[in-house]
This record gives sequence, structure tokens and C-alpha cells, in this order.
Amino acid sequence: ARPRVGYFYAGDENRSLWLRRLRAIPVRAHHAPPVVVGEADSVREAIVRLFLEDVGTLYVLGRERLLAGVVSRKDLLRAAIGRQNLDEVPVGVIMTRMPNIVTVSPDDSVYDAAVKLLEYQVDSLPVVVPRGENRHALEVVGRFTKTTVTRVFVALGRDEPWVGGES
Amino acid sequence: ARPRVGYFYAGDENRSLWLRRLRAIPVRAHHAPPVVVGEADSVREAIVRLFLEDVGTLYVLGRERLLAGVVSRKDLLRAAIGRQNLDEVPVGVIMTRMPNIVTVSPDDSVYDAAVKLLEYQVDSLPVVVPRGENRHALEVVGRFTKTTVTRVFVALGRDEPWVGGES
Repeated sequence: ARPRVGYFYAGDENRSLWLRRLRAIPVRAHHAPPVVVGEADSVREAIVRLFLEDVGTLYVLGRERLLAGVVSRKDLLRAAIGRQNLDEVPVGVIMTRMPNIVTVSPDDSVYDAAVKLLEYQVDSLPVVVPRGENRHALEVVGRFTKTTVTRVFVALGRDEPWVGGES
Repeated sequence: ARPRVGYFYAGDENRSLWLRRLRAIPVRAHHAPPVVVGEADSVREAIVRLFLEDVGTLYVLGRERLLAGVVSRKDLLRAAIGRQNLDEVPVGVIMTRMPNIVTVSPDDSVYDAAVKLLEYQVDSLPVVVPRGENRHALEVVGRFTKTTVTRVFVALGRDEPWVGGES
């Protein structure tokens, strides 16, 4: 009976190995470059930047180029249909402000980051590393979005060897 | 040597079985309900609907409630910063119009649909079924987005049994 048992155990082991690997794929291997604006830039400048870079969310940098906020297509659309002059309102006025921002670390897994996207119902997570001891002083090193997850899903389906970030 | 060889073959078979299963997950088991507007509705009505339903893309229905077009957050933002009166411009004027729309069938796989999202650089695919013989006469039955892919990715990682749409 040994080979037969071995066969089935091997299957279960491989399945759970595959799942462990899926859950361990690091954000670091897949995130995109961040697209940023300054807190004092106007809402119109932010909209132009969003179109030129063709992204859904911009990260807003404050003093010392630390993460100050996040502004989404939806925030910009809300501002655009309002009565404000888009050239005069700074993006800092309409953004979601730190510390009310969901972020990920490059060392987090794509799986955990995908769970965060769903849980907090956001389209994009800034990939950040702390600068110094203050855990709210964050440097933005990347952009993690539902497009990132879609790319990883397709790479998994293609069985691409680099998907685990090992090459 | 037999058990050992068996062990490794079992692993490869299970891996490729897992991948075949991943690539076979049907759109039907995971897509969301469509959110639609009429072609004659104003751009402002479309924007309000987008916010109320909290979606990124609206599907636009024309005569006989067939798919006429698609309008994204980006299209609406472009219209909102323009000089037009949002109450007077119908959404049919700013939408992407059939047949220039990428769609999926409920019988397509999530994998193929995810490949389409990346290839055509869109956020959303209407899930459609043909009405009658004309292949451009499409009924919209669902919405497939990068959020859908993210949900399936997380369900895979959790090893949820319903992910393949079998229950």
C-alpha cells in the first residue's frame, strides 16, 4: 500500500505547498512605481497628472516628501462637479489624510495586500517604508492596485517562474 | 525507485491539475450585477449613479435595453472638467460606443477575462449574452472587474471550495 498512500499524500502536500507559495508572493516583486503630487498642487494639476500617467490614484507628498495623503479618481470627480475653482483648491484640501490611509510594506504578501484592498474597499495601497522611528513618517516606494493583483493572477495561471519573486 | 518516481509524478500532476483548475474557474461563478444607465440620461445623472452604486464603470443601454456603450470614471471626469453643461449632455455623447467594447461571456474563464482586462487596459468588462442572431445585439447580465479578480485571488489563497463555481 505504501506507494499508493505516498501518491495521495504527495498530492495533498503539493496542494498545500502551492497554496503556501501563493500566499507568500511578496509585494516587493510586483508593485508598480508610485505616481505622486505635492500637497499644495491644485486639484486641476492633480487631474492632469492622473490622465497623463493613466492611473486611478495619486499619492500626495507633504513635508520632507513624506506620505501626506491619497487622492482617488472619485475624490477628483467629486471636486470637479462641485462649485470650487479647480485651479485654486489645493489637492491637500480634498485628499484622504494620514493616518487614515491603508498602506502595505514591500515585505507584505500580495495575498495580504489583496485582502486589505477588499476589506477597506480601496483601489490602491501605497507601498511604504518607515523613515526613522515615527511610524507615521512614511516614504512611498510603490503603488499596489487591483491591476497588480490581476497581473499576479494571470502570471500564476501561466505558471510563470518569476511569480514568486525569486528571479 | 518506484515510490519515489511516483511521488514526484504525483506532485507534477497535482500542480498541473491545480493550474488547469485555476484557468477553468468560470466568470459565471464570480461576476457582480451590472450597473446601468440609459443612453439619453445626462452626464450628471451618470455621475450621481456612479457615486450611489460605488462602482468605477457604468454600462449604457440603448434601444430594447441592449448594450450601447460603456462609460468610465475617467470619461466622466474628463466631461466634468470640460466646459459642457453636465445636465444637458447625454451620456451617449461621451461613452465608448459599441462595437468598440471588450466584453466577456458568463462561460468564459476568469483567467481569460483577467488577460483581457490587462490586454485592453480597461477596469471593467460587461458580461454579456447575445440576443438572437446578431452578434452585436448584446444583453448585459453582469460586471467583471479587477475587484472580481482580486476576490477570486483571495478565495484561491483561502482554498475556498466554491472558488471553482462548483457549488
